[in-house]
Amino acid sequence: MRAVIIGTGFMGRVHTENLRRLGNVEVAGIAARTEAQARLFADELSIERAAGDYRGFLADPAIDAVHICTPNAMHFPLAMAALDAGKHVLCEKPLATSVAEAAAMLGRAREKNLANCTFHNLRYYPQVQNMRALCQAGELGDILAVQGTYSQDWLLYDTDWNWRIESGPSRAFADIGTHWCDMVEHITGLRIASLCADIQTFHKTRKKPAGSVETFSAKTALPGEYREVPIDTEDFASMIFRLGDTARGAMTVSQISAGRKNRLFVEIYGTKASVVWNGEKPDELWIGRRNEANGLIVKDPSLLNESARSYADLPGGHSEGYDDTFKQVFRRFYRTVADRNAPVEYPTFADGLRQLRILDGVLQSSRARAWVEVLKD
Amino acid sequence: MRAVIIGTGFMGRVHTENLRRLGNVEVAGIAARTEAQARLFADELSIERAAGDYRGFLADPAIDAVHICTPNAMHFPLAMAALDAGKHVLCEKPLATSVAEAAAMLGRAREKNLANCTFHNLRYYPQVQNMRALCQAGELGDILAVQGTYSQDWLLYDTDWNWRIESGPSRAFADIGTHWCDMVEHITGLRIASLCADIQTFHKTRKKPAGSVETFSAKTALPGEYREVPIDTEDFASMIFRLGDTARGAMTVSQISAGRKNRLFVEIYGTKASVVWNGEKPDELWIGRRNEANGLIVKDPSLLNESARSYADLPGGHSEGYDDTFKQVFRRFYRTVADRNAPVEYPTFADGLRQLRILDGVLQSSRARAWVEVLKD
Amino acid sequence: MRAVIIGTGFMGRVHTENLRRLGNVEVAGIAARTEAQARLFADELSIERAAGDYRGFLADPAIDAVHICTPNAMHFPLAMAALDAGKHVLCEKPLATSVAEAAAMLGRAREKNLANCTFHNLRYYPQVQNMRALCQAGELGDILAVQGTYSQDWLLYDTDWNWRIESGPSRAFADIGTHWCDMVEHITGLRIASLCADIQTFHKTRKKPAGSVETFSAKTALPGEYREVPIDTEDFASMIFRLGDTARGAMTVSQISAGRKNRLFVEIYGTKASVVWNGEKPDELWIGRRNEANGLIVKDPSLLNESARSYADLPGGHSEGYDDTFKQVFRRFYRTVADRNAPVEYPTFADGLRQLRILDGVLQSSRARAWVEVLKD
Amino acid sequence: MRAVIIGTGFMGRVHTENLRRLGNVEVAGIAARTEAQARLFADELSIERAAGDYRGFLADPAIDAVHICTPNAMHFPLAMAALDAGKHVLCEKPLATSVAEAAAMLGRAREKNLANCTFHNLRYYPQVQNMRALCQAGELGDILAVQGTYSQDWLLYDTDWNWRIESGPSRAFADIGTHWCDMVEHITGLRIASLCADIQTFHKTRKKPAGSVETFSAKTALPGEYREVPIDTEDFASMIFRLGDTARGAMTVSQISAGRKNRLFVEIYGTKASVVWNGEKPDELWIGRRNEANGLIVKDPSLLNESARSYADLPGGHSEGYDDTFKQVFRRFYRTVADRNAPVEYPTFADGLRQLRILDGVLQSSRARAWVEVLKD
Repeated sequence: MRAVIIGTGFMGRVHTENLRRLGNVEVAGIAARTEAQARLFADELSIERAAGDYRGFLADPAIDAVHICTPNAMHFPLAMAALDAGKHVLCEKPLATSVAEAAAMLGRAREKNLANCTFHNLRYYPQVQNMRALCQAGELGDILAVQGTYSQDWLLYDTDWNWRIESGPSRAFADIGTHWCDMVEHITGLRIASLCADIQTFHKTRKKPAGSVETFSAKTALPGEYREVPIDTEDFASMIFRLGDTARGAMTVSQISAGRKNRLFVEIYGTKASVVWNGEKPDELWIGRRNEANGLIVKDPSLLNESARSYADLPGGHSEGYDDTFKQVFRRFYRTVADRNAPVEYPTFADGLRQLRILDGVLQSSRARAWVEVLKD
Repeated sequence: MRAVIIGTGFMGRVHTENLRRLGNVEVAGIAARTEAQARLFADELSIERAAGDYRGFLADPAIDAVHICTPNAMHFPLAMAALDAGKHVLCEKPLATSVAEAAAMLGRAREKNLANCTFHNLRYYPQVQNMRALCQAGELGDILAVQGTYSQDWLLYDTDWNWRIESGPSRAFADIGTHWCDMVEHITGLRIASLCADIQTFHKTRKKPAGSVETFSAKTALPGEYREVPIDTEDFASMIFRLGDTARGAMTVSQISAGRKNRLFVEIYGTKASVVWNGEKPDELWIGRRNEANGLIVKDPSLLNESARSYADLPGGHSEGYDDTFKQVFRRFYRTVADRNAPVEYPTFADGLRQLRILDGVLQSSRARAWVEVLKD
Repeated sequence: MRAVIIGTGFMGRVHTENLRRLGNVEVAGIAARTEAQARLFADELSIERAAGDYRGFLADPAIDAVHICTPNAMHFPLAMAALDAGKHVLCEKPLATSVAEAAAMLGRAREKNLANCTFHNLRYYPQVQNMRALCQAGELGDILAVQGTYSQDWLLYDTDWNWRIESGPSRAFADIGTHWCDMVEHITGLRIASLCADIQTFHKTRKKPAGSVETFSAKTALPGEYREVPIDTEDFASMIFRLGDTARGAMTVSQISAGRKNRLFVEIYGTKASVVWNGEKPDELWIGRRNEANGLIVKDPSLLNESARSYADLPGGHSEGYDDTFKQVFRRFYRTVADRNAPVEYPTFADGLRQLRILDGVLQSSRARAWVEVLKD
Repeated sequence: MRAVIIGTGFMGRVHTENLRRLGNVEVAGIAARTEAQARLFADELSIERAAGDYRGFLADPAIDAVHICTPNAMHFPLAMAALDAGKHVLCEKPLATSVAEAAAMLGRAREKNLANCTFHNLRYYPQVQNMRALCQAGELGDILAVQGTYSQDWLLYDTDWNWRIESGPSRAFADIGTHWCDMVEHITGLRIASLCADIQTFHKTRKKPAGSVETFSAKTALPGEYREVPIDTEDFASMIFRLGDTARGAMTVSQISAGRKNRLFVEIYGTKASVVWNGEKPDELWIGRRNEANGLIVKDPSLLNESARSYADLPGGHSEGYDDTFKQVFRRFYRTVADRNAPVEYPTFADGLRQLRILDGVLQSSRARAWVEVLKD
């Protein structure tokens, strides 16, 4: 199979590298805004074809799939074009900039019967799948409460800058809050039914540097020429919510929490037991119990619930990291590309649409300072 | 000095034992609902005088202070009587069952110029004082966000029972949520300005055993005769809030979180640094930083901020526990009993009143499913 | 009952304060090298009688027991005098400066049928007793391996000084290594049979300040006048050993390990399960398992092995610290003072003698750079 | 560039997958004991050429390098043949079964001027490189003490079986102890000068299953037909040692420690600061300090010492795991294949030889129950 990557940022790089691990999918080309940019990337990563215009790849019948790793606003037009060209599509999250766009994308993918994936890769840490498996097996009982945070610190200072800051109606919640909500709904199988959220832009202006800045590299950027730019995307959000018919929840999303590099922390409490996971130590799972010792599992295939075992490739205590979640998704996505009847074990455009509905609720609730209902799927 | 303890439960016991550590305060008597109950306690703990009626102690001019360790509903009448008798008063939290009661108690104590303490002892772990000292010294910068939880699991099952379940308009938030809010306001010096809360009673009925049950002993209670009793106090609360003029927050309170025995977890994020503390490992303080390594302090007087140092009696790495917080409060309280001009370094009735105002807001917000403002002091 | 404390250092203070928690033992007097020193201590801690000569207390028939909290070299003469005067004796560890002294002390105590305790208090953290209970109940299976360390950093610099540095043939191993060995033998019930040790004095000279320095206060000492003093007591020891008939072990002892304030870390591996405990977080116990999740117990009476439960006075998650171990020992020691037929649930002079035999082996092995056998009791 | 993998076990698989991430090296072939075995592997991993005889690949001038992922006894003949054929060689550790073999391999590689690597990949976790960089920059001061363990539990029961058990004079120390020693010498730049070790085979016999068993899969093996086989390779080793001129150390190696899946734990204490790392949570580094807060770094390029930064490919808090260390080594190895003047930033045959010298000392010391000197390189 042959794939093309669109986007030469951090994500384009990680997709390229980890797609190659499969062995049966070739990274056949890279597309960027300019050919020069694409060529630079291609040379560095040893990709044969590079293009400033992605349309050549879409027209090429040898290409099976397209990975969209661009800024969010481009997801919709690129995905629609790729689907129209009959390509299977993996798209980074958030899937689109509005519910309407996402719904259209989902509709088109279904119409064309093409494999479609919203890249909520964090679901595919072995211990996250293990939480889901424990939950589905009834080992937690009924879910009572869910809480946690997705916290980072790379935008703490007003001198921190990135294209994501300029990208639309939401930033922190769109970029990482949706990961948290997707994970909680994926693990519990329950849907966030209503919510009350409060978003905050602590830095009303930021200092934008003259040149361009790669995601996450803000922290190591050198001082230079800046100009003061007004900011309307949030640095922080807090939310309480109801999950399913009876469960309750609370969470925060932050890009200004000093010392938290990439803390996706999720706690799920049930009537029989609870599970807690921290994305900064992904191989570890804490299991809470009332009448016996709590459990602590260092990732080990033999200790994972059977239905989660295929998500761990390495023996006990051999750490599996962020890149390995890409491999897990790619492996499953391309299995469905090769065999359109294979089971869909990855997040689809429907999941991406779902997160945009929640995001809509968050923004609406925060504006109104009131509880809002979230539409069922 | 001579003190009398009222109440023979878990708290009466811990007060007695730790008050004795001071050396200059005698536990002169114990009062309970019946003389038999008081006598039993007195014999076990080697206290000379025991009474079924506390009024004898109040009438005795040799008694300097009264420790109120009874169920919450008795706090108000006992404290008022003690103050009227000219006794200094330490009262367990929550200070009263309503804002009105608490305001009256505070008024009376001020009128009589008597030392008064609401027993928010958890403030006095060395690392909590250290967080406050760091905050006051400006080492965190401006506070941006506060989050955390106070979670326990001793009321997870509907067969778990305790007198606290029957005690008024709120249970989980009144008993432990107020500890969390008191700590956050104490550390940051900021006040919760508005909040949106959601409380939930998961067990609408519980099985009440025939006999009486000591607090926290639910888990080891033997099965016996029960009767089904309707419950209207909450098992769980979630809350988002605004703190001071600009900071944001989120927290949960729970007595049904499997595996969490007594997790008071507080995270405070500022523009310069952050601090995180977990009451189950009280000697440890995590310090978050953006541009250098995070910090981790194992309690050590030489590593505490100077103004927090007097709250640690032991050398580095020698653990100080729950009982030691009692000693710290008692030492400071009786210093003001001995010298009415000594500084008040303990939580007063004003602090107890403050927490009742917040609790009022929580209950009102939850009923209305809406944001509410919290009165300033 | 009435007790007298000898020694006004850190230990004298902790003994005084925690002995008072019992309620049925009066701290009747304090003895020091000079009356002035004793009087100062007595005033600060509200003790009635103070003496520069302990012999007055020994002659007083109202005194039941003596706590020896002096430098090590005084343990032998003081204990012998106290026993000869018919007093029960609690003595700080190490029990004596030689096996011969310790053997004589044990002989005298037995001859006089007096209660005798070597103050290995660290055994009495609830989770340490829990480890012992699990071991005795067979839940670990046969012990295969034991490892760990007792590490501190308060003597890292050559400007750190304390009387302990001058006190005899061994320092780090005598002061804290014996705690580690005592704990391991207490938990497993096995005896260190042979060992190969290597001790090292990193600072061959140290800067001794003009005045006196309290234990552990080195770190906060102010610069002043010093003189260079040669040092022959060890800063560090490493040891491998055989335990019982088949188990193996390795450990280190250090007072120069930057960042380790008081880390007593012990790992015990058996054929069925293992236990790991860290004295800096004493309420937590890790349980290792091969074919199921590891366990993690936050101290909770309902989760402790039944025979360890009486060592925990507080509910789940309410931390019990260093001072609380004193109370546990005192309570049991004075029970045997009150009733000479009560069970001896504390470390005796026999245990103190045992540790001196091991220490002897360590010094001999290190000198000879060879394995040595340790005498059975 | 084109590489061939020899060996179809767990290691062959991990080499294949991670080599592909580079993009400029093709996995051109796989060799195994039989062609059927090789073909199966090739089909599953999408490798074009498969052979039962590796010699065809050695004869092919298009092949640049050979990865030796076979049982240890085959390392020597395969590496010598590959070198003789002019191929660059990456060889799994331990490099050989004797010092003599390893010395011959090193000699041949130098003679032929071919790139040679002993695959001590664990050095290349970003935080391990960070420890080395901190050490080299003098931030730890002089090294005083080193301690730790490499512990696993996959051979705890006598029903656990693997080909490694049968493979020569040492098992636990050869397989994982050498990783620990290599890491300590790599970080500190010091050499283990003398040692006293004690090795133990707890299971004198094991139950060997009828079929073959993949490494680490013991735990999930199904019961079947067994036969009792005598075992002479060790399950456990303990060792004290001297490092460089003055530093001291202690360590254990174990494959029978219940609950430890793959715990490579290393603690390095210097006169100025210390570092501690646990391979089960590889992104975290603890830094110990005497007079300020300890440090805790979640892996983040901006927080790593500059000379370690190139070993981290992902932003802060995005976990890098076991597989990522392979990529780091491969990238650097093939850089020297492409450019024979590029710096050698990976472990060579000289490092493999070094570990065999230490292993020799361990076996000799254990037999003699005595200290032994370890030859300098």
